[in-house]
Amino acid sequence: DEVKEFARKMIEEGIDKHAADGIGMVDYALASGGAAVVKHSEPFDVGGRGNWFSLSAKNGVHPNAEKMLKPSFGEPGQCFPLKDSSGFVQIRLRTAIVPEAITLEHVAKSVAYDRSSAPKDCRISGWLQGRNMDSVIHPERMFLLSEFTYDLDKSHAQTFKLLDSASSVVVDTVRLDFTSNHGSPSHTCIYRLRVHGHEPEIVSMMATQSL
Amino acid sequence: DEVKEFARKMIEEGIDKHAADGIGMVDYALASGGAAVVKHSEPFDVGGRGNWFSLSAKNGVHPNAEKMLKPSFGEPGQCFPLKDSSGFVQIRLRTAIVPEAITLEHVAKSVAYDRSSAPKDCRISGWLQGRNMDSVIHPERMFLLSEFTYDLDKSHAQTFKLLDSASSVVVDTVRLDFTSNHGSPSHTCIYRLRVHGHEPEIVSMMATQSL
Amino acid sequence: DEVKEFARKMIEEGIDKHAADGIGMVDYALASGGAAVVKHSEPFDVGGRGNWFSLSAKNGVHPNAEKMLKPSFGEPGQCFPLKDSSGFVQIRLRTAIVPEAITLEHVAKSVAYDRSSAPKDCRISGWLQGRNMDSVIHPERMFLLSEFTYDLDKSHAQTFKLLDSASSVVVDTVRLDFTSNHGSPSHTCIYRLRVHGHEPEIVSMMATQSL
Ligand SMILES: [K+]
Ligand SMILES: [K+]
Ligand SMILES: [K+]
Repeated sequence: DEVKEFARKMIEEGIDKHAADGIGMVDYALASGGAAVVKHSEPFDVGGRGNWFSLSAKNGVHPNAEKMLKPSFGEPGQCFPLKDSSGFVQIRLRTAIVPEAITLEHVAKSVAYDRSSAPKDCRISGWLQGRNMDSVIHPERMFLLSEFTYDLDKSHAQTFKLLDSASSVVVDTVRLDFTSNHGSPSHTCIYRLRVHGHEPEIVSMMATQSL
Repeated sequence: DEVKEFARKMIEEGIDKHAADGIGMVDYALASGGAAVVKHSEPFDVGGRGNWFSLSAKNGVHPNAEKMLKPSFGEPGQCFPLKDSSGFVQIRLRTAIVPEAITLEHVAKSVAYDRSSAPKDCRISGWLQGRNMDSVIHPERMFLLSEFTYDLDKSHAQTFKLLDSASSVVVDTVRLDFTSNHGSPSHTCIYRLRVHGHEPEIVSMMATQSL
Repeated sequence: DEVKEFARKMIEEGIDKHAADGIGMVDYALASGGAAVVKHSEPFDVGGRGNWFSLSAKNGVHPNAEKMLKPSFGEPGQCFPLKDSSGFVQIRLRTAIVPEAITLEHVAKSVAYDRSSAPKDCRISGWLQGRNMDSVIHPERMFLLSEFTYDLDKSHAQTFKLLDSASSVVVDTVRLDFTSNHGSPSHTCIYRLRVHGHEPEIVSMMATQSL
C-alpha cells in the first residue's frame, strides 16, 4: 500500500510536469510570453521555392522562426530549419533576467524521419540590449553563457546549466551559435530553445543597466 | 508482480486521462465543439496599442476570447486577459445541458512568470437563452450555479461541483463573474473554463422550454 | 526499492511515448512531414452553410481535410467530417515507403459528445503514384494493405498491422475506404490516420519505380 501510494504520487507528478509545457520550468524565450527571434543566419528553403525573403519576411526574420519558441506535439516538422551545418539565432527574451540554464529540444527519436539535422556543438551568449535597437554588437558587453553538445542518445529535450559566471549578469537577448550538426550537409533544424532564470531584484538591475 | 501490474495500469489510466483533453470530462464550453464567448467585460490591452475594438472585434467579442475555450500546452500567455480585478465572461454552450460541474484553469505554477492575474472569488450562473438573441437579461430566468474560490495552492485545473439546485435546470448559456483576483491591479487572465453536465432527455427539455 | 525503480522507469517511458506524438511511431502521413490529403468523398457541411467548395477548396480538397493528418489535444471537433456512413480519403505520403501498419484515431470516449460518427469497417489500399499526376487509377497497380474494424471499446488510437503481402510493396499514396460507421446516419469523422513503415533501400526502390 505504501508502494502503491508512492507510485500514485510519482505518476501524478510526472504527468503534471509533462502538462506544464513538458518540463515544468519557466521559459523566458517563449513566444506566447513575449519573446521573439530578432535575427538569424540564412534559413533553409524546404520547398525549394526560391526567395522566401520577398514573400513573407518581417524585418528580415523568417515566419518559421517563431516555431522554435513554441511548444508542439513532439511531431517532426515543427522546427526552424537553417541552411548549412553552422549558423545562429538571436532571441529577444520576454524581459531582462539572470540566466540559469537553457533547454535545447529536437524531435524525439521514436517519431523522427531522420535526426541528422539536429544541432551538435553549440555556444550560448547573452547581453543586455535594452531599448538600443541598433544592430551593432558591442563584444565587450557580450557574455559567454555556455558551450555544450546536443547528444542524440539522451532525452530529446536537453537542459544545460549555464557557466557560474552567468549568475552575475542580466541579459534580455541571447544568441545560439551552432558550429556543427549531426550529419546533414544541407541544413540544421531547431525545434525549440528555452531560456530559464529569474528576474533580477530592481536594485541589482539598475546597477547592471548603469554599467 | 501484482504491484507492477497495478503500477502499469495506473500509469496507463493517468496518461489516457491526460491525453483526453487533460481531465477526461466532456466539456460543453469547448470552442471546437461549437461553444463561443458571446459577451465580456472590457478586455486588457496587452500591447498597449489602444483601441482593439475597431481592429478585430466580432460583434463586440475580442479575438482572444476564444483562447479560454481551447486547450493549450500549459504554457503562459494562452489566455483571455480582462481589465481590472473584477469582470465577467458569458458563454453560449454547444447545446442545452443539465450542468453538473465546471473547471477553471490557470497556468501551472512551475511555468508561470506571475500568477497574480489568476481569478479568485467567482460566481457561475446560467440560463436558457434559446434562439432569443436580444441581449436583455431576464433575472427571473437566471440560475445561480455555484460560487467558488480559485486556490493557487491546488492543481492548476480546479473542478467545482455545482449547487444541488443546478441539477433541475437546463441551460445553454453560462456566465462567469469574478469579483477578485490574486493581486494584479491591472488585469485578470482566464486560461480556460469548461462546463460539464449531460444533455437532457427530450421530454424534460421540452418541459423546461415551455416554462 | 526495486519496485520503486521499476515504477519510475515505466512512468518515464509512458510519458516519453505520450510526448512523442502520442504513440511513439514514425508517421509518414503527417501534414507537418509533408503529407497531404489529395482527394476525398463529399465532405459533411457542419454549419449547414451550403457550398463550401466555392469558398475555400484547394484543388477540390476541403480545408478541414488537413486536420486528419495533424495531432491535437484529444478534444472533440478536431476531425475531418465526411458525408454519409461510407466514403474515402486519399493521402499522398511524405515519401515512398514500405508500409507496415496504420493507426486510426477517434476522439476518446471520456470527452466525446457522441461517438456514432466513428468509422467502423475500413479498407486501406496503396500504390506508387510517383510524379504521375493524372487522376486515372490503374487498378493493377493498387495493393490491398489491410481490412479492419475500428472498435469503440478499445483505445481511441488503434494500430493495425498490414497484410504480409504489403511488406513487399512500395507506396507513396494510400486510400482509406470506410464502408460503415458506428451509427450516425449523416456523417463520419476521421480524427487522424497515420501510416507507419520504413523507407526502402535505394536499390529496391529503383526496381519498383521501373515497373
Ligand atoms: K516547436
Ligand atoms: K487556453
Ligand atoms: K486531429
